[in-house]
Amino acid sequence: MRLLDRSSSDFLYQQVIDYITKQEVNGNLMAGDKLPSLRKLSQQFSISIPTVKQAYVELERQGLISARPQSGYYLRAKQAKKLLPRRDKWACRPPEAVTCGHLIEKNYEVIHRPDTVALGVSNPIQAHPPDKTLARYMRSVLSKVSDKAVSYGPVNGDIKLRLSLATRYQNLGVDINHQEILITSGAQEALSIALQCVAKAGDIIAIESPCFFGIIELIESLGMKALEVYTCTDNGVSISDLESLLDQHQVTACLFSTAVNNPLGSLMPDKQRQQLVSMLEKRNIPLIEDDVYSDLYFTGKRPTPAQLYSEKGLVMTCSSFSKTAAPGYRVGWLLAGKYEEKAKRIKRAQSCSTAMLPQWTLNDYLMSGEYDRHLIVLRKKLSYNCERLRAAIAADFPDQVRISQPQGGSVLWVRCQSHVNTSDFFHQAIENGVSFAPGQMFSPSGQFKNFMRISYGVQWGEDIEQAVKKLGKLVQQYSN
Amino acid sequence: MRLLDRSSSDFLYQQVIDYITKQEVNGNLMAGDKLPSLRKLSQQFSISIPTVKQAYVELERQGLISARPQSGYYLRAKQAKKLLPRRDKWACRPPEAVTCGHLIEKNYEVIHRPDTVALGVSNPIQAHPPDKTLARYMRSVLSKVSDKAVSYGPVNGDIKLRLSLATRYQNLGVDINHQEILITSGAQEALSIALQCVAKAGDIIAIESPCFFGIIELIESLGMKALEVYTCTDNGVSISDLESLLDQHQVTACLFSTAVNNPLGSLMPDKQRQQLVSMLEKRNIPLIEDDVYSDLYFTGKRPTPAQLYSEKGLVMTCSSFSKTAAPGYRVGWLLAGKYEEKAKRIKRAQSCSTAMLPQWTLNDYLMSGEYDRHLIVLRKKLSYNCERLRAAIAADFPDQVRISQPQGGSVLWVRCQSHVNTSDFFHQAIENGVSFAPGQMFSPSGQFKNFMRISYGVQWGEDIEQAVKKLGKLVQQYSN
Repeated sequence: MRLLDRSSSDFLYQQVIDYITKQEVNGNLMAGDKLPSLRKLSQQFSISIPTVKQAYVELERQGLISARPQSGYYLRAKQAKKLLPRRDKWACRPPEAVTCGHLIEKNYEVIHRPDTVALGVSNPIQAHPPDKTLARYMRSVLSKVSDKAVSYGPVNGDIKLRLSLATRYQNLGVDINHQEILITSGAQEALSIALQCVAKAGDIIAIESPCFFGIIELIESLGMKALEVYTCTDNGVSISDLESLLDQHQVTACLFSTAVNNPLGSLMPDKQRQQLVSMLEKRNIPLIEDDVYSDLYFTGKRPTPAQLYSEKGLVMTCSSFSKTAAPGYRVGWLLAGKYEEKAKRIKRAQSCSTAMLPQWTLNDYLMSGEYDRHLIVLRKKLSYNCERLRAAIAADFPDQVRISQPQGGSVLWVRCQSHVNTSDFFHQAIENGVSFAPGQMFSPSGQFKNFMRISYGVQWGEDIEQAVKKLGKLVQQYSN
Repeated sequence: MRLLDRSSSDFLYQQVIDYITKQEVNGNLMAGDKLPSLRKLSQQFSISIPTVKQAYVELERQGLISARPQSGYYLRAKQAKKLLPRRDKWACRPPEAVTCGHLIEKNYEVIHRPDTVALGVSNPIQAHPPDKTLARYMRSVLSKVSDKAVSYGPVNGDIKLRLSLATRYQNLGVDINHQEILITSGAQEALSIALQCVAKAGDIIAIESPCFFGIIELIESLGMKALEVYTCTDNGVSISDLESLLDQHQVTACLFSTAVNNPLGSLMPDKQRQQLVSMLEKRNIPLIEDDVYSDLYFTGKRPTPAQLYSEKGLVMTCSSFSKTAAPGYRVGWLLAGKYEEKAKRIKRAQSCSTAMLPQWTLNDYLMSGEYDRHLIVLRKKLSYNCERLRAAIAADFPDQVRISQPQGGSVLWVRCQSHVNTSDFFHQAIENGVSFAPGQMFSPSGQFKNFMRISYGVQWGEDIEQAVKKLGKLVQQYSN
């Protein structure tokens, strides 16, 4: 009986699969598009909703579509053959004094050039900027407190914003109060303060490999050394790899983005994050979390903050509104664990305090509920853009290219053939009106020369597709 | 003939002196008040304008009144007997690892307590806050560029603001262009970047003694050592004293406020500043200038920036709008001389960039001419407050107390009897609703225990007079 049912349902759900595949081939459905609802297909084919669901689960298993909780199913770019392997070929490198930066400057510069499609920076809010709403809140704040807006604020930031942030962490299960939150000038200052809390010049900091170039440059600027730790494309840092490195090197602190690595888009499962915190705290090694992308996950629920698992106060979380709402406001924060007092002293010494007006504005935005509604749309748009970009790269780049399948954030990590050095055509790309981030920016030892990071934190459109085509041509040209 | 004339004019001008003195005794003229114009007294006493002028010059020579160019003559607090000597008794101390900060936190905290008159912070704009005007400019900017306001700005800041600042320096004779200006999050970040450009942990930084506690805490936070250099109450650091210290110690950089020291209010004459720069550049020692008060001079013209005399690019100027317009906007800048590129890299690594909206607002304010008009009024109010505070202290503090005669800025430096430790009644003062900055905050070696810094960056009124009375009582009590 079950077998018969199964086989009959197999046939029925194959209908659904064929239909979706056909829609994709015809171009009626494009990468990133939402699939018809279960109910709709159930009516269309006169089959049960569980059967349609079964078909969708199979398509998901094959990596062709993805489910988003409380939203539905979405078509992925059909590029399984071009996916990066889970464990790629790069190596953990011994710690070295960091010296990068020559490409970073150029990369940042072109953001402000109107003639360049800037795919070299990770700027997720471009996909859905909340500027009009924020301007409205700011005007309202300004009319109430123009006198306070010009005055010094408290060193640790606005108490109301800290209370709101504390509540958000409490809702994630983290036992924290507002006094433990230090408002900073973006996450970058939070990272700088966190590193200075626990390490000094010459100390070794373990970082993911590949790693966001801003972190590499920060470690360089503080005279510390970076130890690259192998990072998987799906789950991030492997704990056993890390442990063996910690046995070999005198590591002062780890600085990881476990919830959506930049540039990989990898996302460490909660359980693994818990093991990581526990292992590091056993060794008394602080973990600094760059957590700016954790609200930009694509599937499932928000990753748990590493703070949740800390028992010794050695976890420091750095985050901001720069990737979710307003990089230009320069509002970030630091949960400094047991280093709370020291962090506050460093903040006071090095930049006094953070501007209050953007803090008040963002807090009003948070309290209104609009921020959370904005995040839902932003995630959706980024996830859509992600598939569009993957499809565009699949169409325009050479076959040998492999790409990541990010679990959040706003960037793709692309591997070209091993003889290609993507820095070679970086300037040429800019001259052609499109930027990307060359792979070697993501390693203090200059690895990843044949990689590139391409951002989908954009308003998707014809101009972006043209820009990707231009990149594809360059990759093709330098691959021959 | 000349003798007769002179004697007759002596008599005539004595009339004027007697009249002014009487007005003061009667309370018709109070410290900080503007004196009658030359023309008015000339008519009143039927004497020539030059004779009245002669009388005013004599009163000025006696330290009883002060002249302000293009403004007139003002009554000083009548406290010559309580003036600090030019060279006071404190000593240059050998370099030490800086450890201060326990009082700083409390001092900043009370700014935000509505029940406390915060005379412990230097916040000049309180004397004349331009908040309404700035809010107007900000609203106007916001309505034009809400989209850009949420976006990342260039690492080195808004080009228009940098052009405006460059023009201001050019008008002072400094050969500089906008590319050499780095916008920072207040002068404090500029100082932090400047120090990191030229020194590393363990290096010796020469500082004025006494020195603004924020500088001491910054040097501490960077793991550097501070060498205290004797600083005169009038002209600042003595070059010969400094040279002999430089012969004894391996000094990596000097960090001075030659244009209005905080807390002394001393102001190095331009010629001496030129000698300082020349001597230091001969020795290849960078000079970092904390220049935040240079627009708040009381007499004569704006002091020349040390940059003007630099031939080797070893002078770095740190300044901001925090003492003149809007500390809450967190907009400062750094002229980094030959360290321009390195400074930009450190800025990018440690805080990415500075918020744009306040930069656009301040630039519109500058371009409109309102900023300069505001500065004229601010200087006048501060100079008035200064004399009022000096008079209040003279009336309410014990006779043995000595006070500074600042040439600009917003603080008085007060010496109590040598057995008094002003930290002893710091918390008691706050409980009484008034704060001040205890002297030992101004020395890494904990000198100046019997000193206190009191701010006149306030709206002068009965509440301030009452607060000073409370401080006077405490000083009296702890002096017995």
